[in-house]
Amino acid sequence: MVQYPQLEAFSAKEGVIRVIGHRGARGIMPENTMEGFAFTLACGVRLLEFDVVMTKDNVPVITHNHHLTRSIVRDGNDDWLPGEEPKVSDLDWADLAQLDVGGLDGDSEYGLRFPDQAFLCDVRIPKLSDLCRLITQPEYEDVHMMLEIKSDPDKLQDAAARSAIVTAVANEVRSFGLSERTLMHSFDWNLLAECKRIAPEMPTSFLTQLPDNAADAGEDHAITACPDLTTGTVIAPELVAQAGGSLWCPYFQDVTAEAVARAQDLGLRVAVWTVNEVEEIDQMIGLGVDAIVSDYPGRVQRRLLAHGFGWSARTAVVGTLKAST
Amino acid sequence: MVQYPQLEAFSAKEGVIRVIGHRGARGIMPENTMEGFAFTLACGVRLLEFDVVMTKDNVPVITHNHHLTRSIVRDGNDDWLPGEEPKVSDLDWADLAQLDVGGLDGDSEYGLRFPDQAFLCDVRIPKLSDLCRLITQPEYEDVHMMLEIKSDPDKLQDAAARSAIVTAVANEVRSFGLSERTLMHSFDWNLLAECKRIAPEMPTSFLTQLPDNAADAGEDHAITACPDLTTGTVIAPELVAQAGGSLWCPYFQDVTAEAVARAQDLGLRVAVWTVNEVEEIDQMIGLGVDAIVSDYPGRVQRRLLAHGFGWSARTAVVGTLKAST
Repeated sequence: MVQYPQLEAFSAKEGVIRVIGHRGARGIMPENTMEGFAFTLACGVRLLEFDVVMTKDNVPVITHNHHLTRSIVRDGNDDWLPGEEPKVSDLDWADLAQLDVGGLDGDSEYGLRFPDQAFLCDVRIPKLSDLCRLITQPEYEDVHMMLEIKSDPDKLQDAAARSAIVTAVANEVRSFGLSERTLMHSFDWNLLAECKRIAPEMPTSFLTQLPDNAADAGEDHAITACPDLTTGTVIAPELVAQAGGSLWCPYFQDVTAEAVARAQDLGLRVAVWTVNEVEEIDQMIGLGVDAIVSDYPGRVQRRLLAHGFGWSARTAVVGTLKAST
Repeated sequence: MVQYPQLEAFSAKEGVIRVIGHRGARGIMPENTMEGFAFTLACGVRLLEFDVVMTKDNVPVITHNHHLTRSIVRDGNDDWLPGEEPKVSDLDWADLAQLDVGGLDGDSEYGLRFPDQAFLCDVRIPKLSDLCRLITQPEYEDVHMMLEIKSDPDKLQDAAARSAIVTAVANEVRSFGLSERTLMHSFDWNLLAECKRIAPEMPTSFLTQLPDNAADAGEDHAITACPDLTTGTVIAPELVAQAGGSLWCPYFQDVTAEAVARAQDLGLRVAVWTVNEVEEIDQMIGLGVDAIVSDYPGRVQRRLLAHGFGWSARTAVVGTLKAST
C-alpha cells in the first residue's frame, strides 16, 4: 500500500481523535466560505472539509450544490435568489462574484437546521485558489484539505467531464504545492478512480451512505456513483480497500463497531460524517473512529476532552490531564 | 441631557435592534479573549461587551472575575489552575501572561453551561490596550465598547480605589482616541458616578438585577453597589435617569414592557443581558428593547431577521425584504 504522508493528520493515535470542520463550521458560520474556514482554523481545527464544483469558465469554486440554492444565496439587492436556481456550471466566475453567500434564509427548511449560524454580508463564493492561498501561509502549515469533488449528476456517464474536473482540481492544488496536504474525497467512486490515475500522489477518501438514509433537506442528494450497499455497511470497507482507497467516510448512522474495526484492519482510516449532536459524537468516540466530521467542531473538541482525548498532540495532553483527575 | 454620539450605535431605530456580543461571544469562543472578539467582529457584530479588572501593577486587563477561576484558566502545564484561586489585583501583568484562558473545564459547573465553546490553546488574558489597538484599525471604525468596570467587592467603601480604576481605564481609552466609541458600564452605581465626574465625555450604562435572581454558576456575584430594587424593576429606570445614566441594562428576566417603555420615555436606551435562548430572544424583541446582550450573537441575528429586523442599516434591508415576503 502506498504510504501517503498526509494520512497521518487524519489518523487517530494514542489519546487523539481528529476533528474535521464540515464546510468550515456550518453550524456557526456560513458554509464553504473563507469566513467560515478562518473561524474553523481559529478554533485550532486543522482539517477542512469542503466541496468543489466547476464554473462554466472552468474555475474550481467552493460550494456544495450544483444549482445555486435560494436559501443560502442573495442577489445584489440582498434578496434571496429569485427565479429558477441556476446551475453553477452554466455561470462564469464573474457571475458568481456578484452573489452573497453570507447568510441562511431562516424561513427555509435548510435554514431552520442551523439556527446559530451567523448572518454575514458581502461574502463571496470562494475559489479553490483562495483557500489554497490562505493555507500556504506559514501559520497554517499543518492544515490539511479533505477536498470533496462533486460530480455533476447529469454527467455521471461522461468520462471526459470527470477527467477534466479532476485535472483542473489537481493542477490547482499542485500549483500551490499542497498535494501532500490534500485528500481527494467523493461519493463518486468512478471519479475517485480517475483521481488515482491523474493525481496518484494524493490519497482518496470514499464517501458512502446507505440508501435507507434519506438525503438532508436543502442539499443535493449524496448518492452519485458508488456500489450497491443495500446489503449493509459492513461490505463497504472491503470495497473501499479493493478500490485503492485510503480513507473510508461513511454516514455516521450507518456505521458499526464491526465495520470500523474491519476498515482499520484493512489499513483504512475511518472518518464519519456529519456528526453534530452530543450523543452522536459520544457514540462515534466510543466506536474508535479516526476522525469526526462536524458542523460544530467546538462541540466535538469539548466531547473529546470529556472522554480524555485531544485532537492533536498538544490537546491530547489536556485530555489526559483531565482524564487523570 | 448631554448628547453622546456613541449612543446612536446602541439605539434601536426603524427595523433595527442592536446586538451586543457578551464577553465577545462566550457561547462559541473563550470569553474575554482577543480570539473571541475577533470572531464576534467577523460575524458583523459591532458592539462588544467585556469586563475590566486591574492588576497589582495597574494594568487594566479584560477578565470577568476578581479571582482567576480554575474552570477557565490553565497553568503552563495545561493543567487547571491548582491551589487557591489568586486575586487578579494581587498579581502583576507578567504573572497573568503565563496563563492560558483558551478553554473551559467541561466537568465544571461553569463549563457545562457552554458546551459549544471551542477549546483553544495559548490564549492570553488581554490587556484593555490590546482590544483598543485592534478596534482603531480602519475596518473597525464602527465598533463600540460596552466597557464594564468590575468593582472589587473588598473595596466598595474605598473611594480612592474607585477613582484610581476609573482614571486608569478612562486614560487608556482616551490614549487610543476611543472615548466617543465607549460606554462605561457597571453594577456599581458609585463607580458610575465617579465615571461621570472623571470621564464626562463617556456615557454611562447602569446594570441592574433583582435580588430574587441568583447569581450564575461560576461567576462573581453581580450585585455590588446599586439601589435597593426589592420593590421590583419598574423603579429602576427612574433611578438610572436620576443618576444621569444614558443606558439601562437590566437582567432580561427582570424586565417588563412597562419598564422598557418608561425607560425610553425618560430618554434612556435599554439593553438587556444575557439573552441566550431562542424564546427569550423572541420575547426581548417583542418588548422593543434597544439592544440584546448575548453569548450567541449569531443566534440573535437570526431571530432578528425572523422578526423582520436587522442590527444595522444594511441588515435592516435584509430583515425588511424577508418581512415583506
